[in-house]
Amino acid sequence: MEKEFDVSKFPVKLEINVRSYEVDFQNVVNNAVYFNYFELARIDYRKKMGYSLNPNGTFSDGLLFFVAHNECDYFSPAYLDNELIIYTRIDYIKNSSLNFEHLIYNKTTQQFIARGSGVIVNVDPLTMSPVPIPETKIEEIKTFDKAVKVLR
Amino acid sequence: MEKEFDVSKFPVKLEINVRSYEVDFQNVVNNAVYFNYFELARIDYRKKMGYSLNPNGTFSDGLLFFVAHNECDYFSPAYLDNELIIYTRIDYIKNSSLNFEHLIYNKTTQQFIARGSGVIVNVDPLTMSPVPIPETKIEEIKTFDKAVKVLR
Amino acid sequence: MEKEFDVSKFPVKLEINVRSYEVDFQNVVNNAVYFNYFELARIDYRKKMGYSLNPNGTFSDGLLFFVAHNECDYFSPAYLDNELIIYTRIDYIKNSSLNFEHLIYNKTTQQFIARGSGVIVNVDPLTMSPVPIPETKIEEIKTFDKAVKVLR
Amino acid sequence: MEKEFDVSKFPVKLEINVRSYEVDFQNVVNNAVYFNYFELARIDYRKKMGYSLNPNGTFSDGLLFFVAHNECDYFSPAYLDNELIIYTRIDYIKNSSLNFEHLIYNKTTQQFIARGSGVIVNVDPLTMSPVPIPETKIEEIKTFDKAVKVLR
Repeated sequence: MEKEFDVSKFPVKLEINVRSYEVDFQNVVNNAVYFNYFELARIDYRKKMGYSLNPNGTFSDGLLFFVAHNECDYFSPAYLDNELIIYTRIDYIKNSSLNFEHLIYNKTTQQFIARGSGVIVNVDPLTMSPVPIPETKIEEIKTFDKAVKVLR
Repeated sequence: MEKEFDVSKFPVKLEINVRSYEVDFQNVVNNAVYFNYFELARIDYRKKMGYSLNPNGTFSDGLLFFVAHNECDYFSPAYLDNELIIYTRIDYIKNSSLNFEHLIYNKTTQQFIARGSGVIVNVDPLTMSPVPIPETKIEEIKTFDKAVKVLR
Repeated sequence: MEKEFDVSKFPVKLEINVRSYEVDFQNVVNNAVYFNYFELARIDYRKKMGYSLNPNGTFSDGLLFFVAHNECDYFSPAYLDNELIIYTRIDYIKNSSLNFEHLIYNKTTQQFIARGSGVIVNVDPLTMSPVPIPETKIEEIKTFDKAVKVLR
Repeated sequence: MEKEFDVSKFPVKLEINVRSYEVDFQNVVNNAVYFNYFELARIDYRKKMGYSLNPNGTFSDGLLFFVAHNECDYFSPAYLDNELIIYTRIDYIKNSSLNFEHLIYNKTTQQFIARGSGVIVNVDPLTMSPVPIPETKIEEIKTFDKAVKVLR
């Protein structure tokens, strides 16, 4: 079953080439690797908003996020050397968390092969407890990612 | 928030020691690695039912499964050298798919740190299309995993 | 101690950004990941000569190679998000094997951080036994990689 | 060519089962994964001497080591689900470095499949500069690993 998606509301696209060691015993990209791709896409999203990673894992705006939830639906496999596009948007923002949505398009086979999402939580770098996402950050995301929903 | 779970209905437990290279830039086990653990647990589940892996990726009963869905809720991090237990059961069986449920208990910190699930689909090794799970296999699972629900 | 190298005789350079999950418990790129980079560089080398990977792991010229030896000297660490250049050349060709040489330059810290090499062996895809590298392939490499030594 | 080795002087043996995602596009354990195994073996070596890892990457004796050199000769492949034994000894100790030697035996195919070595350097956790290995540590290693050579 061919899947169709509208990618027009995804502000970030990251191109990734399937690496030799990401293909597993079944000759397809291992299911766990998709979550590596999602992580790269989320870091890329923040870079395209103008922030860089610090060596300690915080971003240059001082915010630190941890992953609270991940999920992925796999429609078709990705194979060795396939060229993929990871489309990424933020679906909604809650008090201290963000929900990313990802689509993976396989340029080689010309189809959407997976859809995923992930919730990350903003934590205080000292206490590691959840803290509200600053209002200025929410405004910044709304400017960058027009379709985001603020649920608070 | 401490999470409590009843593991008595999980027939398979796999012990895993966090490996040095599974810890990432945030000094915790990378979120994608949990899906590696789930895959190991699913293979272990089938081994404890008496089947081994063939070099081509099928099991010794001739069945071939692909992952259709994965998800994980992360409650607390796992750190370098922590000892984990992955509890695994099959929650339900549909026509051509199985849904596994996993709990991860951190023996070092003495708490449940994650809960996940994954749907795998039985495919024909030649056509790679979904095919019904054989009745004999379903009976075998019902004997091994008492709480499984058959939804068909 | 600062290391200096002449990269003018390396025909292939591959740029790689350190990925979040490649950084390990010591907050540096894990030592094993350098061999992932070398593998990517060797595949990239063959692509820049005009060949692509087939799904079965052979290249489009029908040749199949297995790794017989790997080594790496680490001079300085690479950190999260560093931009690296992997310089790659073939140092020598023997009867059925090639020896690659790699240098890793860290653009972020502006120094050479590692030097490695790897021997790959040309095998018959059916018997998996070493077979001589075809003369036409050697000529092709000599054109592409001027400083290569043919030791046979 | 069958390789024979005398493992009687190796004080540490670590058993590892090849994991599904360690097998790559060529259906063998990826060449870089051997260095993951060596790292696990080196950590296991130190645990069997009675030390544990701290969350910051030092061991419980306060020592911190970085990898300066790695190498591996591959004799035969390892396949999905093979059971491996990693034999580990320290070949020699220099002023601030140790050289580990590793042999990998494949229990499934009943042959030695690889031999490797790795140099690790003792560094000051604050300056990250090499510092001499304490005399008491050298004596301790000589007791644990009878064939070690002290080159200083």
